[in-house]
Amino acid sequence: MPVMDPEFHFIVHATSGRARTGTLTLPHGTVETPVFMPVGTQGTVRALSPTDLKSVGAGIVLANTYHLHVRPGEDVVAKLGGLHRFMAWDRPLLTDSGGFQVFSLDGFRRVDDDGVEFQSHVDGGRRTLTPERATEIQWTLGADIAMAFDHVAPGGADEATSRDALERTLRWLERCARKHAELQDATTPRRHETADARRGVLASCSQTLWPILQGGTHVNLRTEALRRVLEMGAWTGMAIGGLSVGESKARMYEVLDLLEPRLPAPLPRYLMGVGFPEDLVAAVERGVDMFDCVAPTRNGRNGTAFTPEGQLNIRNAAFRTDASPLDPTCDCEACTTYSRGYLRHLFVAEELLGLRLLSLHNVRYLIRLAEAMRAAIRKGDGALAAWADDWRRRYTQPGTA
Amino acid sequence: MPVMDPEFHFIVHATSGRARTGTLTLPHGTVETPVFMPVGTQGTVRALSPTDLKSVGAGIVLANTYHLHVRPGEDVVAKLGGLHRFMAWDRPLLTDSGGFQVFSLDGFRRVDDDGVEFQSHVDGGRRTLTPERATEIQWTLGADIAMAFDHVAPGGADEATSRDALERTLRWLERCARKHAELQDATTPRRHETADARRGVLASCSQTLWPILQGGTHVNLRTEALRRVLEMGAWTGMAIGGLSVGESKARMYEVLDLLEPRLPAPLPRYLMGVGFPEDLVAAVERGVDMFDCVAPTRNGRNGTAFTPEGQLNIRNAAFRTDASPLDPTCDCEACTTYSRGYLRHLFVAEELLGLRLLSLHNVRYLIRLAEAMRAAIRKGDGALAAWADDWRRRYTQPGTA
Repeated sequence: MPVMDPEFHFIVHATSGRARTGTLTLPHGTVETPVFMPVGTQGTVRALSPTDLKSVGAGIVLANTYHLHVRPGEDVVAKLGGLHRFMAWDRPLLTDSGGFQVFSLDGFRRVDDDGVEFQSHVDGGRRTLTPERATEIQWTLGADIAMAFDHVAPGGADEATSRDALERTLRWLERCARKHAELQDATTPRRHETADARRGVLASCSQTLWPILQGGTHVNLRTEALRRVLEMGAWTGMAIGGLSVGESKARMYEVLDLLEPRLPAPLPRYLMGVGFPEDLVAAVERGVDMFDCVAPTRNGRNGTAFTPEGQLNIRNAAFRTDASPLDPTCDCEACTTYSRGYLRHLFVAEELLGLRLLSLHNVRYLIRLAEAMRAAIRKGDGALAAWADDWRRRYTQPGTA
Repeated sequence: MPVMDPEFHFIVHATSGRARTGTLTLPHGTVETPVFMPVGTQGTVRALSPTDLKSVGAGIVLANTYHLHVRPGEDVVAKLGGLHRFMAWDRPLLTDSGGFQVFSLDGFRRVDDDGVEFQSHVDGGRRTLTPERATEIQWTLGADIAMAFDHVAPGGADEATSRDALERTLRWLERCARKHAELQDATTPRRHETADARRGVLASCSQTLWPILQGGTHVNLRTEALRRVLEMGAWTGMAIGGLSVGESKARMYEVLDLLEPRLPAPLPRYLMGVGFPEDLVAAVERGVDMFDCVAPTRNGRNGTAFTPEGQLNIRNAAFRTDASPLDPTCDCEACTTYSRGYLRHLFVAEELLGLRLLSLHNVRYLIRLAEAMRAAIRKGDGALAAWADDWRRRYTQPGTA
């Protein structure tokens, strides 16, 4: 079923229960899974540089098509050499399709079968995204992985609403796939040029398109979506959208539990917008391979740090003269260089370095969490469950932090 | 006249006109002069990490006694290992005395011979700084160089006002020197412990105290101040305060011109709060060795970059699709990694990385400027003047930037 394209390739190495480790090969490099992808909404992971990201072991970064389309515009990114060159990130990139953003916008206006009309959050201008435009924009940006344009129903939507969004998402997926194939064909056999060659811009790689499963928390819709998506073509990966949007964690885990046995093992599975440490652990146990979330950087900018004993807020007066590191188990620059007392001072004094250091630590935390899970999975059956029990006991107990 | 203390040592290597190159030896390392010192007001150079600062060749950093006293408090800094350890900067540090800050504060209340009463900008509380307290606070912070507490008259003050401030500054200097000697004596022969040893804190080094020459733009007051300061004791360096506070550049240069022949050649000369690139060049030509200023980081955060062709504002729409580096002659991370178009995007999209990158570039610009002047001075008489003429022609012409 998966395309045997040597540029887009996934191999599962080991399993422990439903959890797996794997290697995802993409034009800009390989990614070991399970993997956490930091989010670079506007073509930069907030407060962090590519050098920072490499220093904490980030292998793949996500950028937002909606944001880059609105500002600076994909034409500007293309003129500046494509998204990799633009943001100086030479490892794999994934762009979302803009679907989730336009449906979440205050300026969201109207959806019909053609596409979505919305208001730009930057200039208030009315704009339209269609499956074809979203695909074309992503092709122009040039990430390794592009996502299909989907209709995201609100969290907790009833079955009729979810069914309607799902049907539209499936019709749109066909149009995305057709457009993507057109763009690829137009550049074959000059594979390493993109459609932007006509504007004098060469992209550095080809691109794969991944579908997004919708269906809310209705498992019958999810399994139907999966069946119809698989019938539609050969994919190199599979995303699960529309979870972690307000439903309970228990419900999200239940949907994953019931969906997992039907997911084709050879495809990498990407759970969009997830998440917090406890979500990553629970989802890896349920067979998910890839994650993205703004939590580590957003929380970091709020002064909240992930630690093995749970979250702590560095502004807490208890840290005023605390000479110990933020997280003694961590190897990031924030933890190996500074005291909690100094980091607290940076936040209290509203210094920019604090935003960077806590963002860096939180990204490192999630990357180390994925590394720890990969190591446990490699030990074989039962090893991940034992590791996860131990991890949860420590993370959720009322800690000294 | 200079103290022959092996820990605090200055050697002049070469001269070109009045300009000189030298090596300043301090407990935390040596500094090649002329030198620009980035300002870390609150114990961090805004938006930059120590690693960033080392990457652009920073050799010595300035921190503000007033700010650190108010927040987090010198006791907190001491408990966290002293200022070097606190901010993770293992190269030389200089702290100002707080004089300039308290006289510039909105909450400035009252000055008498004892000291200055002022209102904290953080909590509004009434506080008092005296020469003894300012000296003690700096000793507790533990920088390599501490500055005497001075009475700074407003820019453009008449001779009577300047005379009054000067007399008080000289009386205060005696008190600072006495207190500093007391603190040193109390720790001799355990030289590498500070007065904070009684609180269980060991500082990593000893400290030298530098006097500040005041006298406004009145050259007779300046030369009198210099004579009386030199009579007062043996110093390891000499600061010139109260310039670049509103007087014309021509007037500042004139004061330096008339003062320089009387300054003892063996002492490093530090022109406080200066400055912009053109000021550095003019002051080095007039025999100044050391500088500090918030301009590179403050301007950087505003999107203004120093370049060999003058300042440019990166927000300018002309840079929208400009693939060239910010400053093609520069070797900093901002210039070697990113396009002007991307840097513009970071500012327009209000991304934190932009603040860091332009701050980094501007600091590098001033450090490279000092390097270029050192190289010109080493070529001998006339070489710096020729270099400076050429530099000014390029920097002040209406450039392509």
